[in-house]
This record gives sequence, structure tokens and C-alpha cells, in this order.
Amino acid sequence: MASEHIIKSYDEELARLNNALMQMGGLAETQLAAAIRAVEERDSDLAADVVETDQQVDQLEHEVGQLVVRLLALRQPMARDLREILGALKVASDLERMCDYAANVAKRSIALNQAPPVKPVYALPRMARLAGALTKDVLDAYAERNAEKALEVWMRDEELDEMYSSLFRELLTYMMEDPRYITACTHLLFMAKNIERIGDHATNIAETLYFAVNGTTLNQARPKSDRTNTAVVRPRPAAVSGTSNGNS
Amino acid sequence: MASEHIIKSYDEELARLNNALMQMGGLAETQLAAAIRAVEERDSDLAADVVETDQQVDQLEHEVGQLVVRLLALRQPMARDLREILGALKVASDLERMCDYAANVAKRSIALNQAPPVKPVYALPRMARLAGALTKDVLDAYAERNAEKALEVWMRDEELDEMYSSLFRELLTYMMEDPRYITACTHLLFMAKNIERIGDHATNIAETLYFAVNGTTLNQARPKSDRTNTAVVRPRPAAVSGTSNGNS
Repeated sequence: MASEHIIKSYDEELARLNNALMQMGGLAETQLAAAIRAVEERDSDLAADVVETDQQVDQLEHEVGQLVVRLLALRQPMARDLREILGALKVASDLERMCDYAANVAKRSIALNQAPPVKPVYALPRMARLAGALTKDVLDAYAERNAEKALEVWMRDEELDEMYSSLFRELLTYMMEDPRYITACTHLLFMAKNIERIGDHATNIAETLYFAVNGTTLNQARPKSDRTNTAVVRPRPAAVSGTSNGNS
Repeated sequence: MASEHIIKSYDEELARLNNALMQMGGLAETQLAAAIRAVEERDSDLAADVVETDQQVDQLEHEVGQLVVRLLALRQPMARDLREILGALKVASDLERMCDYAANVAKRSIALNQAPPVKPVYALPRMARLAGALTKDVLDAYAERNAEKALEVWMRDEELDEMYSSLFRELLTYMMEDPRYITACTHLLFMAKNIERIGDHATNIAETLYFAVNGTTLNQARPKSDRTNTAVVRPRPAAVSGTSNGNS
């Protein structure tokens, strides 16, 4: 009887841990969607709500940390249980970062609303939709403990990196064409980078799940299409009136 | 005898864990310093070395993860020991990110070397020196398990945020003055952001140490002087020839 009680309560604690993670995951999805709506609709009040809501995520991450310590101390799990419980700690940290990036997008959208609209802003929701889909799918994979599905998310992040690289170049071109776009485009650059990073954290979760399920790491190098680190974009001659640019 | 043997070997395992963390910490310091030297001396070979060396950090983080799983499974530590071992996992993750940011600075410096030098590049080493000092000091605090010293690092990160905010504005002004600086200044913006993030991870380590030692979290909100998320910088009238900017 006593042992059955302990087992039941261990399952209950695991369920609480999963529940807290799934709440964090839900917030990661809704916060990103709301941040992008704030950008599209130039709604600074909504953006402020997103920033405000971010505190809930920190609270949930703290809760996950406490549940993990409790589970480790009282239950001393082994093998896959141990990998899964330590994995929960990692996943919580990734989800907290994802929400942080969403809040950052929201914060910058407030600055963006102080300037006239710039055209490349419309590329951002496309990136955000893909990042949101990767987030949703990796959380589904996690809920089902489906390592194969996680692997698919891991592969699809490359597309997000490609979208980011192309938006990066487009934004630089815009800035070169008219200096009045520079502040807005700089914010958009960082917002696009934030969304690209959300995709990276989705792949981290995929890796953590893969390891928790299989006990081996995803040892292939992840395909990486973000080449902006080494991008050199030069202004068109028209934008540099009266000067010659030997490198263009 | 048997119990003494177990205790000795537990200490040995803890020492191995600490050793791996300190190796990671050493790399976080040397990688950032090398990345900045690559920027200052426009040395793309050195930058490539930094990018190459980053693999060692990933390997060490993996090692820390394995040591932690081993310690938890075999030793079932409690209370402060448990907090400390879980803390090691967090610290390793922060150090891995710090090294990642250093590698990113190095990567972007290669792109920077393809363009003529721009003046604000000289503000970057100043930021990097402070970030390096915060890293060194928080690692010393960690080695000594000195929560007070960690708290000092935590407070000093504000200065780094202020330097970043001021460089952010300077870079935007530069871009507005001459579109040929836009690509270089965009890379510098991201490099400055990377260095600012290294400071944030140093404060994370300070928080982890504080919690491991005291069992309570640093509940004051961290002072935050990075206001670039909401910054609006407008071009000087001279830079916008033939157009009026009603908002300036």
C-alpha cells in the first residue's frame, strides 16, 4: 500500500512537472503570436501586455526548478527518468528564453510605432509564423515523447535561418536607400534575429527530447543557413552620391 | 573503509566537475579576449581560430552534463550539494553561451575585415574588457563559493548595459551619416549586443551561485540600463537631403 502510494504520488509530481512545462510552452506560442500582432497592428498596448506577461514565464521556470529539485531529492530517479527530469530543466530554460525573445520583439515594436511604417516589416510575421509552427510542433513532440517528430522540427529550422538571412540583406538595402529608415530597420534586424533564435531554442528542445528518449545525442551537425554573420552588403552607387565605392 | 572510499571518490567526482567548469570559464575569458584582438588587429586568421576552438566548449559542456547525471544517479546528493550540482549544469550552459557569443564576435570580425575600418570599432574593446572582467570576477567568486562577490558582479553589469546603449546610438548616427558604413556598423551592433549578452550570462552565474550557497534567490530586480529596445534615433537634417523630418 505504502509503495503504491509513493508510486502514485511520483506520477503526480511528474504530471505537475509536465503541466508546468506545457503551460510555459503555451505561453511561448501565445506570447510570440501576440508580439507579432502588436507589430502588424502597430498596437503598443498589446505590446506592453506581452512584456507584462513575461513575468509569468519566469515564475513557471522557477516552479519547474523547484519540482525538479524535489523529484531528484525524494525520488532519486535513474536512467531514462533521470534524463527526462534533467531534460525538463533544460526545456524550461529554452522556453523561458523563447518567451524572452517574444517580449523583446514586443518591446521593440513600441519603438517601431514611433516611426512611420517601413515596408520590410511585413516579412517579420512570415518568419514568426514559421517560428511559431516549430514551437508548436516541438511541444507536441515533447508531449508525445516522439523523438522522430522532434527530429523533423530540428531539420525544418534551416528554413527559418534562410528567411532570416534574406530579411537581413533586405533590411540593409533599405537602410542604404534612405537614412530615415535606419532606426526602424535596426529594430527590425534585432526582432528578426530574436525570431531566428526562437527557432534555435525549438531545436534545442528537440535535441533534449531526443536524448531523453534515446540516451544518445543527435550527433549530426545541425544544418545552418544563417550566413548573416559573414554577410557584406554594399550600398548601390545611387545611395552614395559623390563618392566612389571601389568594392561594389 | 568502503564508506571512506566512496566519500573520497565523491569528492573526486565533484573536483572533476569543478575542473571542467573552470576549464570552460578559462575558455570564456580567452575566447572573448582573442575575438576582440581579432577585431582590433583585423586578424581574420585569429578570428577563424576562435571559431574553431568553440568546439572544445561544447565538448566540455557535454562532459559536465555526464558528470552531473553520474553524480545524481550514484550519489543522490541532498540540499546544498544538490543545489550545487544542478547549479553546475546551469553554469555550464551559461559558459557555453558566453563562448558562443565570443565566437560570433570573431565570425563577424571576418566580415568586418572586408570593409574599410569604421571609427566606432574602438568602443568595442572597452565593452569587451568590462565583460571580460565580469566573467573573470564571477568565476573567481564561483571558485571561492563567495556569494557576496557574485552579488558585486551582478550589480556591475549595469555599467556594461550603459556602454552598450551609448554605442548603439553612436553606431546608428554613423550609419545615418554615410550609407557605406551601414554593413560594418550593423555587424558592430550585433557584436556589441553579443558582448552585452556575455555580461547577462555573468549575472546568471552570479544568481546561480547565490542560490547554491544561500538556498534563496536574488529577488531584487536586476538594474537594467540597456534601453536600446525602445531607442529612437533620428538622422540629422544634413543626412536627409531634400526631405523634411517632422519628428526630429
